[in-house]
Formats: sequence, structure tokens, C-alpha cells
Amino acid sequence: MPNPTAAMLVIGDEILSGRTRDANLHHLSQQFFSAGIDLKHARIVSDDHHDIVSSLNALRAAHDIVITSGGIGPTHDDITADAVAAAFGVAITIRADAREILETRYQALGTELNAARLRMARIPDTARLIANPVSGAPGFQIGNVFVMAGVPSVFQAMLAEVMPELGGGTPMLSETLRVNLPEGDIAEPLAQIAQANPTISLGSYPFHEAGRYGADIVLRGHDPDAIAKAKRGLGMAFQGAIAKDD
Amino acid sequence: MPNPTAAMLVIGDEILSGRTRDANLHHLSQQFFSAGIDLKHARIVSDDHHDIVSSLNALRAAHDIVITSGGIGPTHDDITADAVAAAFGVAITIRADAREILETRYQALGTELNAARLRMARIPDTARLIANPVSGAPGFQIGNVFVMAGVPSVFQAMLAEVMPELGGGTPMLSETLRVNLPEGDIAEPLAQIAQANPTISLGSYPFHEAGRYGADIVLRGHDPDAIAKAKRGLGMAFQGAIAKDD
Repeated sequence: MPNPTAAMLVIGDEILSGRTRDANLHHLSQQFFSAGIDLKHARIVSDDHHDIVSSLNALRAAHDIVITSGGIGPTHDDITADAVAAAFGVAITIRADAREILETRYQALGTELNAARLRMARIPDTARLIANPVSGAPGFQIGNVFVMAGVPSVFQAMLAEVMPELGGGTPMLSETLRVNLPEGDIAEPLAQIAQANPTISLGSYPFHEAGRYGADIVLRGHDPDAIAKAKRGLGMAFQGAIAKDD
Repeated sequence: MPNPTAAMLVIGDEILSGRTRDANLHHLSQQFFSAGIDLKHARIVSDDHHDIVSSLNALRAAHDIVITSGGIGPTHDDITADAVAAAFGVAITIRADAREILETRYQALGTELNAARLRMARIPDTARLIANPVSGAPGFQIGNVFVMAGVPSVFQAMLAEVMPELGGGTPMLSETLRVNLPEGDIAEPLAQIAQANPTISLGSYPFHEAGRYGADIVLRGHDPDAIAKAKRGLGMAFQGAIAKDD
């Protein structure tokens, strides 16, 4: 069976305005890579209802799993839950189960559950809650879409909650060979080795360090024997120029 | 006149596999923010011809400017130029002007201009070259799409080449107030201030540091007087809880 495919939708003005450098996509990509879930596509949109709805509908139709991050807090710019409800064509109300989680949490903290905080209990109909062990307010799953917080510590905790049920496939394996030759000298033998090893993805990532050109050749695949074979091919092609082998 | 809108398309397996954390989108977002170009949407796709073509066509129809990064080197996984040609429905060949740039550069380096390196002279018909002061091989512009390298130093140099001609609008201004109150207490007054200051975008970015909850309130807008007015509103609403004011 092929691995499940996934896409991510990052929601919020802070990355597109340059204020924040993405952390959640980077974390998700590493988690999914290890789990054998093929992350194929990511989109970053601003706090724009129409773009969230249309991006989400495109992604959920094309992939097995969609993860969103951002826009589920208590402030006026948190519009993700309503946009997800609109994308699925379902109603959204304050849900008793989510409200109870918030009541318990804020009672323990001695904090008022005001109208703004209650917005975090707005959950689209038919969605299932995702626990938030960090700060209480839950995420939710509806269909193949998992809606999570944008704060990295909360995003990571919610992802850890759902990872066991996402299944996944054969974990991807990855090895890197650093070759001290300019990419233009590597390209032709590399293309031949790629052709001879069709189950292995061979990526070339050029670098320029201390006046010297080279490339990191990354081998990715599911079968350790196939990776070892491709690696032997690279070793013969670039004999003497391999600087590092992790 | 409203500011031009822009989108970015990041091409390459390395970010979706978790190997690399994005740098080019982060750089572009900061440059465009200062220049008054509104970056509205970004996509990250793998080295997949179909996804590059369809994403590029969606983005260039919806935005004034599209910037791509990645996939224009000499190796077999560099498929961006061909995908861009397909998206525009034009032919792609080794272009004399691009070939001349490569010949001059590799002659000076004493390096052979082999078939792999010549692939970097493949440019879609009607495209205009973008100079690459770092490593020679050019990017190109076709229609409203600017195709640039993925290596961050080269991406940045190419962007610097084209920034003067992208025009841009009224530069966006941004100020941040750190409020030492939980976001749930900030949300209601903040929504009122947002309503009373419709030309200012007010974002709330919660943090949790050393056991204390708070939020950075980011004010973004074009008019310094309008920002100052919204800031006074925040100062009155959160008197005594403002920790930092950059």
C-alpha cells in the first residue's frame, strides 16, 4: 500500500508579513517524514476567510490528511474555526464538550471564562475535539482535516496527540553524502544513478563554503537495501570527492 | 492606488521532507513588507511537474507578482524551467544570451561547460533573464512570474536585482506592544480598538514565558498617524500591563 499523502495549511498574517519564521511546517515535515506520511504540499495564507476556505477545500480533496495551524485563539483575528465550518458546509456553535474543558481549566486557574475565551469553544458540527495538554483550548478534527493551534508548543502537543491515529506507512529513510565537486560536474553521473535506482529519490543541494563548491546528495527511500545500492553507485562515481557520510 | 499583491512558490523536496527550514520565504516576506508589496499567499511544492504547473497558474492569475525559488540548477531534479514553460504554454530551448553568460563564467573559472551545466541556459521563450551576480546561471522573468534560485545567497542576490523594478506601494509600517495579560483578557478591548481603527491591522500573538501569559500586539498599516491613534487606544485599554514598546 502506498504511504498516505498529506498537506499543510498555515494560517496567519505573521509569516507572510515577515514577523515570524515558520516553525510548525518544519516540525510537521520532520514528524511526517519519520512516520512514512508523504507531505506533498503546503500553503501559507493570511487571516482571510475566502483564501482559508478555498485553500482548505482544494487540499482536503487532493490529500489523505490535511493539518492546519493557527487562528483558533480568542482574539478577533482568529477566524479559522468559522472558515473550516464554511468549507465543510456545517454549522458552528459553542459546543458543550469544549465549553466544559475551558470551564474546568479556567476555574482551576481562577480566571474568568469571558465571551472572548468562550469563542475557543466554537467547534464545527460533527467535529471531534483534539486535546490540548498545554493550554486547554482544544483543536478539532473534521473529515480528513486536523485543526491545530499556531503557537509552536501547542501545535507540537496537539500533533503528538493525533500522530498515533494517523497511521502512516513505511518510514522514509534518508542518507546524505557530501561531495566536494561543483554540482555541474556531479549532475550527469547523478542522473544516471537516479535512473538506475528508480525507487530512490536522489536530491542534490549545492553549497558554497570557504571558497569551495560542492553538493549534499540526499538519498531518500523506504528500502535500506536499495539505499545501500544507490550509495555504492555514488561512492564509485565520486570516488575521492566524498567528504562526509552521515 | 492599492499596493500590488504577490505570492510565492517554493519548489523542492527539501522543505517538505524536513531536511531544510525555509529561509527564502522569510527573506522575501520581510523585503516585500518594507517595500509595500502585499505578500498574500505562499505555496511549497515538491519536485513534481504537475503541481508546479497548476500552482503557478493559480498564483499568477490571482496576484500581481509571483516569485518562485528553487529547481533551476544543473541536476536531474531541477525541473522548474520546463514546468514554467509548460504553465505559460511556450517552448523552451537553450538560449543564446544565457549560454553566453555561462560560457564567460566557466571560461573564467577554467571549468567545462558540459551538458548538465548547459541545462541552466534552458529558458522559456519570451522570458527575460535575471542576473545572478553570485554564481552566474541566470533566473528569468516571464509575464508576472520571477523565477529564482533556491540557494539562499543566490535567491537574495536575484531578488535585489529585481526589487527596483517591482515598484511597490506605500511601505507598510509595523509596531509591536507587549501586553502582560492573558490573551483571553485582551481579546474584547482589542476587538473594539480594531473596529475603531479600520485602516490598521491588529494582530495578537500570544506567548507563555517564565510562567507568565501575555501577547504581542502588532499594529500594521500605511499611515503613521493612524498607527499612533490605535496605539494610544491600546495604551489606555491595557494601562499598566504594557511591558515593551518597540
